[in-house]
Amino acid sequence: MKTVLIKEDILSRNNERARDVRALLQKKKIFYVNLMSSPGAGKTTLLTRLIPALGDPLRVGVIEADIDSDRDAVAVERATGARTIQMHTGGACHITCQMSLEALEALGTDGLDVIFLENIGNLVCPAEFDTGANMNLVLLSVPEGDDKPLKYPLMFEVASAVAVTKLDVAPIFDFDRARAEKNVRLRNPDARVFFLCAKTGEGVAELAEAIRAGIRDAKR
Amino acid sequence: MKTVLIKEDILSRNNERARDVRALLQKKKIFYVNLMSSPGAGKTTLLTRLIPALGDPLRVGVIEADIDSDRDAVAVERATGARTIQMHTGGACHITCQMSLEALEALGTDGLDVIFLENIGNLVCPAEFDTGANMNLVLLSVPEGDDKPLKYPLMFEVASAVAVTKLDVAPIFDFDRARAEKNVRLRNPDARVFFLCAKTGEGVAELAEAIRAGIRDAKR
Repeated sequence: MKTVLIKEDILSRNNERARDVRALLQKKKIFYVNLMSSPGAGKTTLLTRLIPALGDPLRVGVIEADIDSDRDAVAVERATGARTIQMHTGGACHITCQMSLEALEALGTDGLDVIFLENIGNLVCPAEFDTGANMNLVLLSVPEGDDKPLKYPLMFEVASAVAVTKLDVAPIFDFDRARAEKNVRLRNPDARVFFLCAKTGEGVAELAEAIRAGIRDAKR
Repeated sequence: MKTVLIKEDILSRNNERARDVRALLQKKKIFYVNLMSSPGAGKTTLLTRLIPALGDPLRVGVIEADIDSDRDAVAVERATGARTIQMHTGGACHITCQMSLEALEALGTDGLDVIFLENIGNLVCPAEFDTGANMNLVLLSVPEGDDKPLKYPLMFEVASAVAVTKLDVAPIFDFDRARAEKNVRLRNPDARVFFLCAKTGEGVAELAEAIRAGIRDAKR
């Protein structure tokens, strides 16, 4: 009982903080994207392909969240030249909006058009915490299986868009695109579904166009 | 501050409960294995191959934990004939020892030699909660990448054994066995590392032998 109350308290404070983040983004006309997925679904690799595909003269920021290690921040910065910071969560399984706000301040938002937050690899907990992002981009990698929306409902319910990644190995893993899309729709009739492969570049342009549309909306 | 205290309280109560589970298992001479991994790493598929590989006349029980859906319990029961129950966590991202104990009671432990608990697919939170199991078997699937022990330290620290799964696709994913083993060892010098593919059966016999050794120890 105690635990539930504390959790509700945390979530209600988190939602208040999310309003602060949205106010900041609106003032600075920045589009903020929260990438969520299982470990190893390809968030970092997707960023290294997606950011160049956005095209000039966009100015991009990246916040890499990890429990430990700075491998992802190094990889993204090297591949894209985007302004990048590494955030360590000290064991935490998700990013709260307070952490999101502190990371935005540490990154520095001046002059940026779009910021990507790479959340902790976890298909459960990050879905519970609004980071203040304009778009929740959920990755589902082909090797995980097309049934994951059935088993991790909340993550797909909070998704603004779903990117099915590692599409090149779909034949090997007996992954059914239509079934995956149907399972996403069961949880979320409105989410756009992209099918792509960051390694070959297939489908990355369509996702980049959706991000550019978001950036244009944020400028209005 | 409040949150941390509550969490410590939960963990200390959890550890007390783990002693209850261990006492029950010791009395009944049952070996209890807790399978943990990312979503889609192959826990269910491994069980469908591992249980038959254990050989007769072992009597096997399976507890399938999921946030939603009973797909896994149906699949395991159909493939192996093991006594199986489905546990729903109602959104929870891990199995507490209280849940573990209730599931053992619901399954019925009489006459069983070994029980497998398939934990929630999550490489973070389940590591924090002792389920009372004799063995923490952590799966790392090849498509996730050989760097995961660097990024999810606690899960590999609490592992008794690590099973690298989906080994057949290692060449496609540029997965380095030696590097994976080295990264596991950085977190945990004592964990045994198995390399296997449930689809082809490669390496499953070695893991089955390790489980049989645990069952023999539990009988003493």
